[in-house]
Amino acid sequence: MRIDIITLLPKLLDGALSESIIKRAQNKGLVEIHIHNLRDYCEDKHRTADDYPFGGEAGMVMKVEPIYKIITRLKSEREYDEVIYTSPDGVTYNQQEANRLSTLENLIILCGHYKGVDYRVREHLITREISIGDYVLTGGELAAAIIADSVVRILPGAIGDECSALTDSFQDNLLAPPVYTRPAEFNGWRVPDVLLSGNFAEISKWQEDQAYERTRRLRPDLLEIK
Amino acid sequence: MRIDIITLLPKLLDGALSESIIKRAQNKGLVEIHIHNLRDYCEDKHRTADDYPFGGEAGMVMKVEPIYKIITRLKSEREYDEVIYTSPDGVTYNQQEANRLSTLENLIILCGHYKGVDYRVREHLITREISIGDYVLTGGELAAAIIADSVVRILPGAIGDECSALTDSFQDNLLAPPVYTRPAEFNGWRVPDVLLSGNFAEISKWQEDQAYERTRRLRPDLLEIK
Repeated sequence: MRIDIITLLPKLLDGALSESIIKRAQNKGLVEIHIHNLRDYCEDKHRTADDYPFGGEAGMVMKVEPIYKIITRLKSEREYDEVIYTSPDGVTYNQQEANRLSTLENLIILCGHYKGVDYRVREHLITREISIGDYVLTGGELAAAIIADSVVRILPGAIGDECSALTDSFQDNLLAPPVYTRPAEFNGWRVPDVLLSGNFAEISKWQEDQAYERTRRLRPDLLEIK
Repeated sequence: MRIDIITLLPKLLDGALSESIIKRAQNKGLVEIHIHNLRDYCEDKHRTADDYPFGGEAGMVMKVEPIYKIITRLKSEREYDEVIYTSPDGVTYNQQEANRLSTLENLIILCGHYKGVDYRVREHLITREISIGDYVLTGGELAAAIIADSVVRILPGAIGDECSALTDSFQDNLLAPPVYTRPAEFNGWRVPDVLLSGNFAEISKWQEDQAYERTRRLRPDLLEIK
């Protein structure tokens, strides 16, 4: 898999994708992540990436030309399955969409800034608009990092312990049961007796009951048939 | 405002909170962001932060002791309004919650990893569990960065152009209208005539119509009375 991220602030992504599981997945050759500085595609001498909006609203708008230039260049080098723009208008990102993206070959993610990109970019160059949630961020970089992280970690081979990813919340529409580790008692707080019992049938039943109980109480929407 | 982030992988947060608006907000003294390495609070010689779960599930669990130690230390130094843990079980993060958090003084955000933290941490030390969306991440660092970014950018004085934040998507439960900047024509793609008309009453009406039309089409749920 290959992910190309286009940004005005490459430093924002410096640490976010170079640690832990994502770093190992790159080292193992499961994914290549390329960060492109959009300013390298701005031709004027000030390397201007943004300009005032037509119609006189507040805020700045990212210009169409540099974005057109880099996306056209990338597409001339290989085929892309999706050109993603992160925006509040997009489809709400969830584990199903992460699963879908993880089966694709080549992705571009464009990070928006200021009041967003010139709308012609979205009409003509973007194939998929994604919203990671109903909140506004400084820019699209953290959203791009979220998408890359959630997709790469489920690539086959990325997580050492495959079973671990399968019992994640959301993969089966259930919240995970509570987990505990040593010591069995700390500060007067005890681990539930059943987990110390050694009776794996009972432990397994307790975990399933907890998963259902927590889902019903905290996220009943996950149990609705879709 | 002060935000303390507790993490096993401080490098993941290196770039994410040291650029752009968040960097300026720190330079202006609007917010202090402190990143704490949880491993500094692990006492054994291997500085172990995690251990196998009781009951024999796959994955590792973050131990209660080091987390107890750092949260207790921070709380002895000042009062905290919320001790946040990012988890799929949490309340769904949105702009209203970002607005609420931005009015508080001191926040702790604990970043989970592996299969999560020992549940006793959540029962006894955490005051607010937040989910940034229905997807699974490598760790809580990106979620913590999302919360910090969305909160800090709306602190008074953080954004140069105050009007800009007010016209963001979500602040009025409407998606933003399309924005365009120069050139008026590029690659045969033209900006809508109304935006070039100079008639500000018409422009304003067009923008409002677009905002409603886009919200009705793409996110009708935002228009429901809550």
